[in-house]
Amino acid sequence: MTDTADDLIERKMLDDLYADFEDAGLIPLWTQLDGLMPATPQSAAVPHLWRWERLLPTAERSGRLVPVGRGGERRAMALSNPGLPGLPYATPTLWAAIQYLGPREVAPSHRHSQGAFRFVLDGEDVWKNVDGDAVAMRRGDLLLTPSWAFHEHQNVTDEPMTWIDGLDIPLVAQLDAGFFEFGPDELSTTATPERSRAERLWAHPGLRPISRPDRPNSPLAAYRWEHTDAALTAQLELEVEGIAGVLEPGHAGVRFSNPTTGKDALVTIRTEMRRLRAGTRTTPLRSVGSAAVWCRPTPWRTRSRRAEHPPGRSGTGRPLDPRCPPPRCSVAYSGACI
Amino acid sequence: MTDTADDLIERKMLDDLYADFEDAGLIPLWTQLDGLMPATPQSAAVPHLWRWERLLPTAERSGRLVPVGRGGERRAMALSNPGLPGLPYATPTLWAAIQYLGPREVAPSHRHSQGAFRFVLDGEDVWKNVDGDAVAMRRGDLLLTPSWAFHEHQNVTDEPMTWIDGLDIPLVAQLDAGFFEFGPDELSTTATPERSRAERLWAHPGLRPISRPDRPNSPLAAYRWEHTDAALTAQLELEVEGIAGVLEPGHAGVRFSNPTTGKDALVTIRTEMRRLRAGTRTTPLRSVGSAAVWCRPTPWRTRSRRAEHPPGRSGTGRPLDPRCPPPRCSVAYSGACI
Amino acid sequence: MTDTADDLIERKMLDDLYADFEDAGLIPLWTQLDGLMPATPQSAAVPHLWRWERLLPTAERSGRLVPVGRGGERRAMALSNPGLPGLPYATPTLWAAIQYLGPREVAPSHRHSQGAFRFVLDGEDVWKNVDGDAVAMRRGDLLLTPSWAFHEHQNVTDEPMTWIDGLDIPLVAQLDAGFFEFGPDELSTTATPERSRAERLWAHPGLRPISRPDRPNSPLAAYRWEHTDAALTAQLELEVEGIAGVLEPGHAGVRFSNPTTGKDALVTIRTEMRRLRAGTRTTPLRSVGSAAVWCRPTPWRTRSRRAEHPPGRSGTGRPLDPRCPPPRCSVAYSGACI
Amino acid sequence: MTDTADDLIERKMLDDLYADFEDAGLIPLWTQLDGLMPATPQSAAVPHLWRWERLLPTAERSGRLVPVGRGGERRAMALSNPGLPGLPYATPTLWAAIQYLGPREVAPSHRHSQGAFRFVLDGEDVWKNVDGDAVAMRRGDLLLTPSWAFHEHQNVTDEPMTWIDGLDIPLVAQLDAGFFEFGPDELSTTATPERSRAERLWAHPGLRPISRPDRPNSPLAAYRWEHTDAALTAQLELEVEGIAGVLEPGHAGVRFSNPTTGKDALVTIRTEMRRLRAGTRTTPLRSVGSAAVWCRPTPWRTRSRRAEHPPGRSGTGRPLDPRCPPPRCSVAYSGACI
Repeated sequence: MTDTADDLIERKMLDDLYADFEDAGLIPLWTQLDGLMPATPQSAAVPHLWRWERLLPTAERSGRLVPVGRGGERRAMALSNPGLPGLPYATPTLWAAIQYLGPREVAPSHRHSQGAFRFVLDGEDVWKNVDGDAVAMRRGDLLLTPSWAFHEHQNVTDEPMTWIDGLDIPLVAQLDAGFFEFGPDELSTTATPERSRAERLWAHPGLRPISRPDRPNSPLAAYRWEHTDAALTAQLELEVEGIAGVLEPGHAGVRFSNPTTGKDALVTIRTEMRRLRAGTRTTPLRSVGSAAVWCRPTPWRTRSRRAEHPPGRSGTGRPLDPRCPPPRCSVAYSGACI
Repeated sequence: MTDTADDLIERKMLDDLYADFEDAGLIPLWTQLDGLMPATPQSAAVPHLWRWERLLPTAERSGRLVPVGRGGERRAMALSNPGLPGLPYATPTLWAAIQYLGPREVAPSHRHSQGAFRFVLDGEDVWKNVDGDAVAMRRGDLLLTPSWAFHEHQNVTDEPMTWIDGLDIPLVAQLDAGFFEFGPDELSTTATPERSRAERLWAHPGLRPISRPDRPNSPLAAYRWEHTDAALTAQLELEVEGIAGVLEPGHAGVRFSNPTTGKDALVTIRTEMRRLRAGTRTTPLRSVGSAAVWCRPTPWRTRSRRAEHPPGRSGTGRPLDPRCPPPRCSVAYSGACI
Repeated sequence: MTDTADDLIERKMLDDLYADFEDAGLIPLWTQLDGLMPATPQSAAVPHLWRWERLLPTAERSGRLVPVGRGGERRAMALSNPGLPGLPYATPTLWAAIQYLGPREVAPSHRHSQGAFRFVLDGEDVWKNVDGDAVAMRRGDLLLTPSWAFHEHQNVTDEPMTWIDGLDIPLVAQLDAGFFEFGPDELSTTATPERSRAERLWAHPGLRPISRPDRPNSPLAAYRWEHTDAALTAQLELEVEGIAGVLEPGHAGVRFSNPTTGKDALVTIRTEMRRLRAGTRTTPLRSVGSAAVWCRPTPWRTRSRRAEHPPGRSGTGRPLDPRCPPPRCSVAYSGACI
Repeated sequence: MTDTADDLIERKMLDDLYADFEDAGLIPLWTQLDGLMPATPQSAAVPHLWRWERLLPTAERSGRLVPVGRGGERRAMALSNPGLPGLPYATPTLWAAIQYLGPREVAPSHRHSQGAFRFVLDGEDVWKNVDGDAVAMRRGDLLLTPSWAFHEHQNVTDEPMTWIDGLDIPLVAQLDAGFFEFGPDELSTTATPERSRAERLWAHPGLRPISRPDRPNSPLAAYRWEHTDAALTAQLELEVEGIAGVLEPGHAGVRFSNPTTGKDALVTIRTEMRRLRAGTRTTPLRSVGSAAVWCRPTPWRTRSRRAEHPPGRSGTGRPLDPRCPPPRCSVAYSGACI
């Protein structure tokens, strides 16, 4: 069976039309619908688990081999989702990295429209200066660097520090909203106070300075591990006493919030800490929205002293493995301890 | 000069009209405008100062002579503004009272739509049970009893306790929105925990339980003096360091806030604590809105022990005098200490 | 049986205590609890119905006998709730009046912190100037005079106009927040445009001028009867078609709203218009909060011409009787028409 | 000069480190910083102008050659930004297309999480059924299809219709939040009412049905040209009278808003209509955020009849050229008419 003349003419007209679409700067919907508007989200990202025992030695080696300084700015190694090859993104909207700051090192000042948090995995006696406010970084603390605040880090010890960086880099890139500026080469302050100005003003439960207005991101620069630990411990204890507080049986959780609004601490990234009672398995949850989750079989002890955790070894026996459930991935967790 | 017949007729017609107004249930505006819509607020309330040295002995005598119990409910003595004679109101919208609970006494359970706070002037080891949650009351603490929560007090010591009651009774009366209900005669709990459940869930700076929704009134039942004291101290210290935080030179202030919204702890009454550096005089302020202010020449020492303040004498040398600026009263304060 | 010496002593001590309370400016709670904190609101106000056939002639007589002008300001006759004798208040929080403006009369300019609406009962060709914007008043229209806007009225016809005044006078008086200021003696404008500037900017459904910010009270000065009528008619027609829209069967209702927020048109007074299908009886409703309700057996016809409603007689056959359910009064309405 | 042994060793160690990064699923920041966090947004998109005289004939040809039906769903031709080759995106976050519906054609029912608006360029007597509500489409109207509402189109005339489709497809794709579902093959309704149910409930200025709650997207399905035109006309007339309203001299603008909140009609796409007085040049504006702008030298006349605009020719003499300023593009417009 061969094409008729009409068929040929119609095919020619169609070919011409599609050529004209291209000339006119048009792309028809009907040839692309499935990719553009899938029945359910088809994220390129995949669930992935990184092993701390693999990450830490690599970070340590980079500490020996790669200097930190102006230009490179930070010794941060981004988790690259295997479904997003070549992209330094943990999920389609989140950037998550291990940052390593060697003994006596300084990471220089800059600021950017991207919002950031840091979560300290090990060490103390590093200070993050945020717009001139020196904020101590200690194991288990969550620290904020809201959009457009100048920040820099200095390590005043002979030990390295490792922390997690979380930023909204992919989201801001998609929105074409990224701005970046280098700060001065000199540290804005070499002070090493126990508590930052931000904490002295804001870290009082339920109290706010009358003089300070609402802000979209939290003005509280640091959420200390001792508070987070106490809050999680209390929820699990209250559960035993029959008092509501946990998310579900054996599953405690707090949200880092902005004391001026009660909403999330950062406008672009939700930050939470959960704790599972040993033997608990959470309800599987599937959501539109991705996550980077750090898991650890045992919680840190609050206010533990450096001596208990010899440098370079703290991670060995106590892995804190990041894993990244992308959008629409069904996720549940099991607890090995309390 | 005499009235003409026309004058007489017109007067008669006017008299008839005004009689008809009354018959018809009408009152003309033009005879009342000045009172109804004054050029500026003409509050009946007047500025007034009560002396603690006068209030405390009276409260103590009532403790000996008047039992507390069902019916009377509370041994509370309301500040009656001299401009509102016979009314137990400190200002046109605020009810403020001295409450006195004797050794081993119990004030029975009830609840009401009126919102309330307590501010403890002296003593400890009294517990306020709020919907079954035992909340310790200690000197300098602000405690909340939001609308419609059952509450009762028990004193487990051989010493009395005095505190300030603040309620929105006049406002709720004006709005005809007052509801009241007696609770059970038995105490809901005789527990005397160091920290209430509400504090265990909520008194962690910047952290909120993921499982708990927003609420119009604060879910944090107690704002402890040690936190309030620390926040005020920090503001004045930061001022010396050149860091913004105080309201104006020498004038520190925190607002008791709702951690779920960042707004006021109670929806109907603003609660704040201020501290003045010695020698400071605040900017005079005039507002539409009245206040009840307790003034004290020296702040309490945080975590002071009972031993330092023998019962019955703590107020003598350290008066905490309430004063009530009504609406549109110009107010300034001077500090005698830090 | 006689009093013992102990009884006498105790009585004396109590008498002394109560005398001291008075001297100290204190009023004990336990002698007043029932009145202060009743089990349920005990509003002094009572449900009351005023008959239009009684109100209108009285208003007309006042038009002949009482001039309108500076000082008295407005020929407004307030509904005085029989439960609040001597007070010109319809309910404990609402002021509601009949206002009558005679032919060619002018009511002079003033402004006040009290918020107001007007609802026109009869007539047209009166203009209300609000901050210099001439707003036509016509039968069935709701007009706003938000807090602190200068306003004045002028009647350019040989016919009188009657309207309803609604203000938050009692509430503002309770809050001691009333301010009042006379405006210029001359009219700000004698223009008589068909549409006010406010309507030209704002009376376009779902459209807002990009240049205008949000405001707490509605910037739309007039809600025209033709729109209100059309909205109510549509709801009842949609109900017949099986489409949701009415409040309950046979009961249509619209709320006058602020196009910048979607909330109530005035921050202190809710304003709504309801219509009942003939034979409908609404669900009884009891609320904390009072109301002034105007009832009319038949709706006006939209865009009807003056000729159909001879002056002075329009009210006779078509009563619009106000009634005032106070707080906690159970209220239901029956419809006589559509 | 040759490498020393140390150089060689160090290079080897670095090579090993970078290889290990890859093995470990890590990408270092310092090799990528410029691309990840540029000093200012470096949008791939470029400013581009499409000519209506080029678009319309192509759309008409596709109407003759390409059927509309299940699978392809819509005869929509997307503007493809030359800076985003191969992608059917007008800007990095916006999808904008010409949609063409031939005489008597039907586009089948579907729904998606992407939000959409339609702006009608020419024609009338097409109906868009949104969740069973038949909404007439006429020249100059803005019509909404909020997220997850079933919608379908039917043309009941012998004339084609052309309109603009605006969707948030790229944004939703980036967020991996796209869901799509086919609806029934049969039209949900063949009704062709003058006004949709949504308009009967909501298109009354400042009035909202009491029974309907707030919604994130506007419940008003259609914003009619006659209202938009009147609002823009009024702003320019008020400007001549010296009354504020325009954005800047000669530049009128309205925002399509949600009557339940006063905010934007759609949560993901801002929609506005502007009009320039002849000879006006707007202030150049640069923003983070892209736009698709349709420009037309003369406004349509309101309520013009089809007869005035013979089919197939309406666009010829009256181009409506889309142009797409990407993020950070400085944009100004000049007016050729009023």
